[in-house]
Amino acid sequence: MDFEFIKQVVKPTNTKIVMLIMDGLGGLPEKPGGKTELEAARTPNLDKLAEEGVCGLHEPVGPGIIPGSGPSHLAVFGYDPIAHNVGRGVLSALGVDFDLKSSDVAARGNFCTLDKGGIVTDRRAGRISTERNQELCSMLKEIKLPGAEVFVQTEKEHRFLLVLRGEGLSDEINDTDPQEVGKKQIPPEPKSHEAKKTSDLLKEFLEKAHQKLSDSHPANGILLRGFAMYPDWPSFQQVFGLKPAAIAAYPMYRGLAKLIGMEILQTPDDISEEFGVLEKNWESYDFFYVHAKHIDSSGEDGNFKEKSRLIEEVDEHVPRLRKLNPDVIIVTGDHSTPSLMKSHSWHPVPVLLWSPLCRPDNIKRFGERDCIAGGLGARFPAVNLMPLALAHAGRLGKFGA
Amino acid sequence: MDFEFIKQVVKPTNTKIVMLIMDGLGGLPEKPGGKTELEAARTPNLDKLAEEGVCGLHEPVGPGIIPGSGPSHLAVFGYDPIAHNVGRGVLSALGVDFDLKSSDVAARGNFCTLDKGGIVTDRRAGRISTERNQELCSMLKEIKLPGAEVFVQTEKEHRFLLVLRGEGLSDEINDTDPQEVGKKQIPPEPKSHEAKKTSDLLKEFLEKAHQKLSDSHPANGILLRGFAMYPDWPSFQQVFGLKPAAIAAYPMYRGLAKLIGMEILQTPDDISEEFGVLEKNWESYDFFYVHAKHIDSSGEDGNFKEKSRLIEEVDEHVPRLRKLNPDVIIVTGDHSTPSLMKSHSWHPVPVLLWSPLCRPDNIKRFGERDCIAGGLGARFPAVNLMPLALAHAGRLGKFGA
Repeated sequence: MDFEFIKQVVKPTNTKIVMLIMDGLGGLPEKPGGKTELEAARTPNLDKLAEEGVCGLHEPVGPGIIPGSGPSHLAVFGYDPIAHNVGRGVLSALGVDFDLKSSDVAARGNFCTLDKGGIVTDRRAGRISTERNQELCSMLKEIKLPGAEVFVQTEKEHRFLLVLRGEGLSDEINDTDPQEVGKKQIPPEPKSHEAKKTSDLLKEFLEKAHQKLSDSHPANGILLRGFAMYPDWPSFQQVFGLKPAAIAAYPMYRGLAKLIGMEILQTPDDISEEFGVLEKNWESYDFFYVHAKHIDSSGEDGNFKEKSRLIEEVDEHVPRLRKLNPDVIIVTGDHSTPSLMKSHSWHPVPVLLWSPLCRPDNIKRFGERDCIAGGLGARFPAVNLMPLALAHAGRLGKFGA
Repeated sequence: MDFEFIKQVVKPTNTKIVMLIMDGLGGLPEKPGGKTELEAARTPNLDKLAEEGVCGLHEPVGPGIIPGSGPSHLAVFGYDPIAHNVGRGVLSALGVDFDLKSSDVAARGNFCTLDKGGIVTDRRAGRISTERNQELCSMLKEIKLPGAEVFVQTEKEHRFLLVLRGEGLSDEINDTDPQEVGKKQIPPEPKSHEAKKTSDLLKEFLEKAHQKLSDSHPANGILLRGFAMYPDWPSFQQVFGLKPAAIAAYPMYRGLAKLIGMEILQTPDDISEEFGVLEKNWESYDFFYVHAKHIDSSGEDGNFKEKSRLIEEVDEHVPRLRKLNPDVIIVTGDHSTPSLMKSHSWHPVPVLLWSPLCRPDNIKRFGERDCIAGGLGARFPAVNLMPLALAHAGRLGKFGA
């Protein structure tokens, strides 16, 4: 459903929608015949919502596609995740809360090891510590370029963010990372005429950086990839006619929300406090994105029990959400992170949509297997969630007479 | 599935398809935990078809989209309802059985109230009676324009149809309705060079109309919108290789059917008589669209019981349909009209497809909740119905070797 079409039928009103995203919610049984993390969790409040509402499973990007957090969040927010691809550099900036301007160029940097001939011998410089990274970044911050400001910010271990700020910059630059050891770094060449100035600045930056790092073995080189600028996308408000707020403790999720025009409500990293922020700001917005991060992290750690426990913890706060009397509640994940796999996966993600206007199905339990028989369908595209949320909130007018 | 592809695989033969559309069929429970109108109805004959056939639910336009009757009918007839958008003026013409020619320009007119300065103070002129509308239309019918014929026809209350007939007319004209009270009417300007003649004629028409109406307060002005010409779409016969007939008592549905090349079989406004027309014309066509209108009207009236009763009434005639021995029977609605909402809604619409060649699922009862688990899927696009009907009728050849 393209944005121009949706904008035609959007009918603003004063109803409220809450979208609760349990990051990495979908899972797998640990053993054949067993339950998933969600199925194993005791979730009486979510089950009640599922019983009164309509359930299903969404596919964030497409069948079999393993989504990163950027695409999967954009998809549940109604943005086609393939058409709206966020560059790696911009994601890095979002992840460290860097205030990227529309004319900045950002890239993901890796500290790496180079031999005397300039050949890359370790693309991650032996995964140096985050503390060592910070020391190296302070050295790089001293670099001055003619006609552009340089920002360098530590992410984690060998990873950092590089931002150039100035007039007439472009992100049409190839990655300098050869992606294999035993090869030389690739010079940052312009892909278009407009990128000539940027590539010249980058070459100068790299030369100075390598001088400064020459004694810092194993982190004596840097590789840059994912050059990107802040995307100019239609905002949530423009497309869906909503005044949206994001309640997310992690920088990258706040950044993703900001990217599509959500207002960011500061919150501590705790699900109970997140619900507190929701309660405090209830009157001021009509769409709330509430993000529960640790469910995904426990999946990534392969900790089945902890993932179940964290789902139960979210469940305990559902009555607070219902007390606010929202018109539409959506509970889902952005993608699956089965603890069995210790990683994001392609498996469809359980969804429940609750509203006084939904048509109930026969589902009485919020879990992967139950949701297959739900009224939303067993594998529907995640981008369909937003139009459904708007419809149930009375925010879409009739198409055609 | 685009038309060029379908045309490649269509294989005409002498099988017969009946598509029975119960207008506004889909519903909602009146109370949490209750049944929908269809679920509450006693429908032994439809249930038998469902048991022998294959079931599911379709979405007429897309997830969350509330379809008007035009788009929803076009969708079940296999025409992409977004690409095949019927202008408001043409729908008005269809609704009053006006015989629109391909070079005519039609618009929906509203009688409105203007103050002395020409500001719109009531966009519907206090919803004047249909009788008053007829008197005013006879006045407007007297207007003569140079080089174009003028047709004015009452629809209902404040609404009428305006048609200009002549050489070189265009529908590239903006609405004159400001859509808000307190604003002046907008002059009918051409959106392209080709529309200059039409906009000049319309300006003259409006001037003369306002002179004639000057003493008719509150209906002392008119607003025009939805300028449109008869669309030039491929016919049902061209695309699907069928010889189709429409049995529909309401003008708009006959008009929609005519738009895609169906022959119109005159029928009284009574479901039993509609089946009589079907029986009488059985030998002459190979596709029959049978339309039961009142189910939608009872939903719009919020009359749950009456909607159930009317569904039961249709059910009683199903044995007459089976006796004709059709190759494919499809029973569905064009959209949902839950009596709880008293309006069209976005909820998916139950479908049953019966044919000796369908692969039965486990559904034994024709109802919303049951259909979720049907073999056609819980939410499939309505445009998929026609290819499925053709396949089950042995009217599609193999694609590829």
